[in-house]
Amino acid sequence: MTTNKPLILVSNDDGIDSPGIYALAEAMKELGDVVVAAPDRQQSAVGHSLTVAQPLRITKFKRKKMKGNAINGTPADCVKLAISSILKRKPDLVISGINHGQNTSVNILYSGTVSAATEGMLLGIPSIAISLASYNLKDDCTIAAGYAKLIAKKLLSNPLPIGTLLNVNVPALSNDTIKGLKITHHSNSSWEDFYEKRIDPFGRDYYWFSGKYIINDDTIDADDVAINEGYVSITPIHFDFTNYDELTHIKDIFDI
Amino acid sequence: MTTNKPLILVSNDDGIDSPGIYALAEAMKELGDVVVAAPDRQQSAVGHSLTVAQPLRITKFKRKKMKGNAINGTPADCVKLAISSILKRKPDLVISGINHGQNTSVNILYSGTVSAATEGMLLGIPSIAISLASYNLKDDCTIAAGYAKLIAKKLLSNPLPIGTLLNVNVPALSNDTIKGLKITHHSNSSWEDFYEKRIDPFGRDYYWFSGKYIINDDTIDADDVAINEGYVSITPIHFDFTNYDELTHIKDIFDI
Repeated sequence: MTTNKPLILVSNDDGIDSPGIYALAEAMKELGDVVVAAPDRQQSAVGHSLTVAQPLRITKFKRKKMKGNAINGTPADCVKLAISSILKRKPDLVISGINHGQNTSVNILYSGTVSAATEGMLLGIPSIAISLASYNLKDDCTIAAGYAKLIAKKLLSNPLPIGTLLNVNVPALSNDTIKGLKITHHSNSSWEDFYEKRIDPFGRDYYWFSGKYIINDDTIDADDVAINEGYVSITPIHFDFTNYDELTHIKDIFDI
Repeated sequence: MTTNKPLILVSNDDGIDSPGIYALAEAMKELGDVVVAAPDRQQSAVGHSLTVAQPLRITKFKRKKMKGNAINGTPADCVKLAISSILKRKPDLVISGINHGQNTSVNILYSGTVSAATEGMLLGIPSIAISLASYNLKDDCTIAAGYAKLIAKKLLSNPLPIGTLLNVNVPALSNDTIKGLKITHHSNSSWEDFYEKRIDPFGRDYYWFSGKYIINDDTIDADDVAINEGYVSITPIHFDFTNYDELTHIKDIFDI
């Protein structure tokens, strides 16, 4: 059955059985026809991985009111495979989330949530990544789902230029304490790495990643700062990595 | 034993037993003290993954004249763990490669080679990713190793600003047909995705990624074009993903 409603592809990186994707899919149903295609298990910190050395499989999934396609791959795999082999036509929107844990600044590099939206964007589709700034799985995604709906609705009628997606982060606050939307830029935050060295039951060393996140900005237009101040941050992101400001300097270094 | 020589950390994504990292480590020995820390197996297309849900282990590795540390992780893990737990001091240079296959344009998103250099850069260390534009493992890395040495030497005496790394791609040509160095920007190339649907011996469907790479630029300053024309491309890359040109437009969409 085809309708005139927008076709919306929903994915994530926390896995198809996570509460965040359920809340997001339900919210998107109010805007259009929804297809869910997401990893069959937790895929956090997979970054922008693609599965090329082994086959992918699609398994039907159902949870309460949500039907979906569980895929044994990464978030990027799910979006690419869904668009190529599940959907009957190109979707009008790709939306990924709702992630538990904020995806701001340098964390975008490691984010499966953002990588799903990136694949949508690379295929020329308006795309959104949405995250809740809380690692507490008990924190309700309803408020973030409401913002997802508001932002998705705007994007369906105001297309972004090809090559840009919206990265949205919602603070873990009640509706009346959220101060509103803020258009932000990627903060200059950083990780102070630490690997804990431990000894396994067989006397062998192993190392476990840990780290401390340091916010170096103080302007309210930086994504991390805006969220900490109670705003929903919306950062337009693109993937031209060139540091244009440095081209002349590099030419000088190499005498070109 | 400490020396006054530069300390150079060498990593890759093709795995510690690949010919590319061997050629690179040997070339770097002419510039300083070299420590090799690389994945214990092939890690192509892992993107910028981090291993956070399981422990990492370090195993001593030796191949001909090269000693190194094989790690059961991704390229990003290797650089982070080496700097935090293997090296006695912060290295003067992180160099990743020599990858078999070019890492240009949008492929940087999926590139483990670039992600290793990115981790060096994020920790404030001059960093280089270097790739040979050939998937043929028989293609010799000696010429690319020569360029790695030339470029690393320049970078050791001409520091880049923090937050920028050099992404280098060498065409698979003989020394006398390579036209020289070209400072480039990230091309606007794209993948036309295709998933081949197959049936396994048990009658179940599976899907395998395939795709066609399309170069949309024609200016010689675009990385893909420069390489195809016979230049070694050097692109300064950074990871502020913000599309600053779009901030006003997005503010208009949301009436902020």
